[in-house]
Amino acid sequence: MRVRILGIGMGPRHVTPEVADALRGCDYAVAARKREDDGLLALRQAVCEEYDLPLVTVPDPERDRDDPADYAAAVAAWHEARVAAYERVLGEHGGTAAFLVWGDPSLYDSTLRIVARIAERGAVPLEHDVLPGISAPQLLAARHRIVLHEVGRPVHVTPARRLREAVDAGQDNIVVMLGGELDLTGLEQWSIWWGANLGTDTEELVSGRVGGVLPTIGAARTRARDRAGWVMDIALLRRPT
Amino acid sequence: MRVRILGIGMGPRHVTPEVADALRGCDYAVAARKREDDGLLALRQAVCEEYDLPLVTVPDPERDRDDPADYAAAVAAWHEARVAAYERVLGEHGGTAAFLVWGDPSLYDSTLRIVARIAERGAVPLEHDVLPGISAPQLLAARHRIVLHEVGRPVHVTPARRLREAVDAGQDNIVVMLGGELDLTGLEQWSIWWGANLGTDTEELVSGRVGGVLPTIGAARTRARDRAGWVMDIALLRRPT
Repeated sequence: MRVRILGIGMGPRHVTPEVADALRGCDYAVAARKREDDGLLALRQAVCEEYDLPLVTVPDPERDRDDPADYAAAVAAWHEARVAAYERVLGEHGGTAAFLVWGDPSLYDSTLRIVARIAERGAVPLEHDVLPGISAPQLLAARHRIVLHEVGRPVHVTPARRLREAVDAGQDNIVVMLGGELDLTGLEQWSIWWGANLGTDTEELVSGRVGGVLPTIGAARTRARDRAGWVMDIALLRRPT
Repeated sequence: MRVRILGIGMGPRHVTPEVADALRGCDYAVAARKREDDGLLALRQAVCEEYDLPLVTVPDPERDRDDPADYAAAVAAWHEARVAAYERVLGEHGGTAAFLVWGDPSLYDSTLRIVARIAERGAVPLEHDVLPGISAPQLLAARHRIVLHEVGRPVHVTPARRLREAVDAGQDNIVVMLGGELDLTGLEQWSIWWGANLGTDTEELVSGRVGGVLPTIGAARTRARDRAGWVMDIALLRRPT
């Protein structure tokens, strides 16, 4: 069978022509059904409706999110459970399956690892390919009308839990993903460009000096969560010169 | 007047529905005409033809690419010359202009800075917005079917000339952009995922251990340049564990 891993950005308005063609050639899409609604299932449903594609939902195994000591092992265990769940669904349905990836498959998304692992296990023989999608850092930058870095400089992209490491290592331009409440203590003089629920009708944007806008960000984050029922945020932090 | 800065990825196959709608609402597109063909003008022409948009070309001022001591100042001078050139064209044509950005406007592209500078100068009053596009690192990752980082780890994106700094600072996952011949001396044990002219019919891909694939990359780079008349490459480097 065939699996196509398709970046869909933040929904139908970001589906590229090459992804649209791929969707037309698929028999169905698979998507996780999570215990708590994070808005992503609705977004995938919207794409499936637009391309008349049946959506097969897969109950998502629970994950230990209490920041366990061995983070990599906790994620690995969760992945293995997801692998088994998706493997079962693919084995039952066969044909050509689409995995619709919010944003882009290359950044902080587990789909590629899950599919590669299923291929490796060999119980459901498959071949897979990947098409890129618009990612959240790009949309954040577009909304704020900024370049992610200063002229000729690097940009460092990190999960929120490793922000402090990046700051200590001297990084000047840091994109922080997979939010949760950010601890920005000590970074009050830094600049921040922040966004939540980007590309949706509950989108929120705030920018300014960290020390000056933290309360505004807190309020905007609460508003996004209240309106959407979920919140996903991202930020660019820049060290003062 | 209005300026829309539109990410077009690697061409028509990456034009998102929101960018397509924006293109339909523009009066013309502007693009640099460089002394040496880098393939980007043809790509923009292809997009303009598809959306029936007149293309106004702007002769690109020359830039000192000999890696001058004061790199930022050299780039700034070049930008100011480009600003004047685009300002003249926008002033003459008015209406709604599209800037078609190869890849995404937020990564190593000067369009946003040029347009913001024109707005700041005030000679041609304008408002501008930005829509994201598929960027080269995403396409590189998709073609190699990889995630850009290991589980829960950061990814560091840097211009090639700062690669050594990133290595010395202990970065493990480094996306190197704006190529030229890469000096990978001392990195023979690292893994590399490399691509050139991504998304075009002269695309080349190589991956492996740096020490083992450097000659292959060199040959692929030459082949891409010979076939296309230009070469643009990008790489992900990962430190051995």
